[in-house]
Amino acid sequence: MAAAQIDGVETALAEKLEGVSLDEVKRILYGRPYKSLEFSAEATKLAQDGDFQLAGYIVDAQKEQTRAPRLVRVAAIQNRIHRPTTDSVVEQRDAIHQRVAAMIEAAAAAGANVVGLQEAWTMPFAFCTRERLPWTEFAESVYTGPTTQFCPNLLDEEKDDVIWNTAVVISHTGRVIGRSRKNHIPRVGDFNESTYYMESTLGHPVFETKYGRIGINICYGRHHPQNWMMYALNGAEIIFNPSATVGALSEPLWGIEARNAAIANHVFTVGINRVGTEVFPNEFTSGNGQPAHKDFGHFYGSSYIAAPDGSRTPSLSRVREGVLVAELDLNLCRQCKDAWGFRMTNRLDMYAQKLTEVSNPDYRPDIRREQ
Amino acid sequence: MAAAQIDGVETALAEKLEGVSLDEVKRILYGRPYKSLEFSAEATKLAQDGDFQLAGYIVDAQKEQTRAPRLVRVAAIQNRIHRPTTDSVVEQRDAIHQRVAAMIEAAAAAGANVVGLQEAWTMPFAFCTRERLPWTEFAESVYTGPTTQFCPNLLDEEKDDVIWNTAVVISHTGRVIGRSRKNHIPRVGDFNESTYYMESTLGHPVFETKYGRIGINICYGRHHPQNWMMYALNGAEIIFNPSATVGALSEPLWGIEARNAAIANHVFTVGINRVGTEVFPNEFTSGNGQPAHKDFGHFYGSSYIAAPDGSRTPSLSRVREGVLVAELDLNLCRQCKDAWGFRMTNRLDMYAQKLTEVSNPDYRPDIRREQ
Repeated sequence: MAAAQIDGVETALAEKLEGVSLDEVKRILYGRPYKSLEFSAEATKLAQDGDFQLAGYIVDAQKEQTRAPRLVRVAAIQNRIHRPTTDSVVEQRDAIHQRVAAMIEAAAAAGANVVGLQEAWTMPFAFCTRERLPWTEFAESVYTGPTTQFCPNLLDEEKDDVIWNTAVVISHTGRVIGRSRKNHIPRVGDFNESTYYMESTLGHPVFETKYGRIGINICYGRHHPQNWMMYALNGAEIIFNPSATVGALSEPLWGIEARNAAIANHVFTVGINRVGTEVFPNEFTSGNGQPAHKDFGHFYGSSYIAAPDGSRTPSLSRVREGVLVAELDLNLCRQCKDAWGFRMTNRLDMYAQKLTEVSNPDYRPDIRREQ
Repeated sequence: MAAAQIDGVETALAEKLEGVSLDEVKRILYGRPYKSLEFSAEATKLAQDGDFQLAGYIVDAQKEQTRAPRLVRVAAIQNRIHRPTTDSVVEQRDAIHQRVAAMIEAAAAAGANVVGLQEAWTMPFAFCTRERLPWTEFAESVYTGPTTQFCPNLLDEEKDDVIWNTAVVISHTGRVIGRSRKNHIPRVGDFNESTYYMESTLGHPVFETKYGRIGINICYGRHHPQNWMMYALNGAEIIFNPSATVGALSEPLWGIEARNAAIANHVFTVGINRVGTEVFPNEFTSGNGQPAHKDFGHFYGSSYIAAPDGSRTPSLSRVREGVLVAELDLNLCRQCKDAWGFRMTNRLDMYAQKLTEVSNPDYRPDIRREQ
């Protein structure tokens, strides 16, 4: 018969976990437990010297006969800005480059094969100001800008001077494989991005790398389950969600959305959020009746990785910079697909037809009333 | 500047919530706090006498000038079976009817306007057995069966003797408004339902009641974000998810999926799961290499209601029967729609086109490789 059951997470929390199983609470909240990754002394020292968190987990899968485990170490890097926003654009960017270089070095020492960075990680998230200069000067060319020389994900200024929110995927060979642009632009709170750049018209490209097929769902796209789904339908095994989001707005949503996408699409998802509070020179208001102020609120970090079986890593800190490394067995994607079979039960053709109907301005919702 | 931040949920749990704010942990896990509903002495006594849990919360919204608050009390009823599965079909069903009648009485005494029940709540969840008789005898006619005389959600035996998994929506006037059938049938674990009944061909009907517009996403449909979305696009404000699911399979997913749907679609969602362990007369195997056994595992209850702002109620117990009552201000749906605007940013026409393309057997995934 079934093992003894605890009464629930709420009871456990209310009683401060006394007299109930911490392991069971963790299982309900986060799924099966992961073993911790053992780090090299070098990696540990880099994190200590750099004063950032280094955490690692092993997300294993069942052994198969005809496929070897497909082990990939994925790193998520969560950083803050490193110079006042009143410094020059070049000084600010260089300081972040230098910091992130140290964090990538630690990730490499921890054996990372794939490194994911935040949304717009080379700059303060200045869209709250609604000012253009100097913030738009952080935009760079995807192919020739100083950050692509260095690493992916940046604002992308094309040759016609239109700015896009773009992630660049760089191969282990150092060559740019391609770029992915933000599909869904916020129209909420201080995220005044819809006046800075446009929705992507590049669709949902997936990038085949030596370490798995990667999709990039930038920030606000995580609120749209269809966006995650399209990356998965194009074959993604790992979908990154480079983000920049603040506590008062989205924190209770953060642990839900990327994880739901991992479950629904039989993929790994990597939610990466910046950390810290960024102060701007000029005051601005937030459309919420509160007085003018100079900061966007607290970026709560909490980067995490979710697995297709519904389990997830703990979050990185809400207050410190950090590197999260997870050794993923990509075989778990197909194993979950085989077990749950949502790709068999998703009735895509029905939804293709339904969404087409709903997109018609003359669509009449199917509402039934008492006769 | 931002208030002092705790380090994270994981830290808090690890330290057993000592020295950190329980309120802050709850906010991160579950969103803004709700006030508790005060129950009448009658409701409290009914729950005490009946030995089931009674919990209630107030999910309020901002005051508006031109709309009064649209307060609706929604009840979710989580029950177990009340006779051994070796008793006759009629005895088993009558015992559950009697029990659920007492629970509905308590919900009514707590002021509930809308009551939601579990999936296939009139019967043990016998699909694990893969046997037909006597379990298929629990199927009833939607319009004339003994349970519709009593209340909604049952297996639905049409006049041509095909069985469907159907929820019936009954108006406060006592008349049947209509029915909703399960759109996505499991092909996982012991949920051998795909050999008992078919996928619905009724689409995603929404039922306009005196107490709001209601959609019903039955059980496995919660794994499919498109299913939730279509009910919302048809105007649902409250989407019920009558379920029957067991701990080893789905428990870490349970708190994620209905809540993600509430967030993504600006609606309330009500996840209702049965509770207890059901033992069957004949042994069966579970396709997992384990020995034959006679029970499906523990149905973990944990029914909860999620709000469009990402907050949620605590769960009902994992082990006891219970009635969860929440006073919802339905104005919150449009307020969240106004604030987040996912209906503006969802790019439905793009996904209609993409899903149409993907549904074509000749579709080639958009995979980019290093040149």
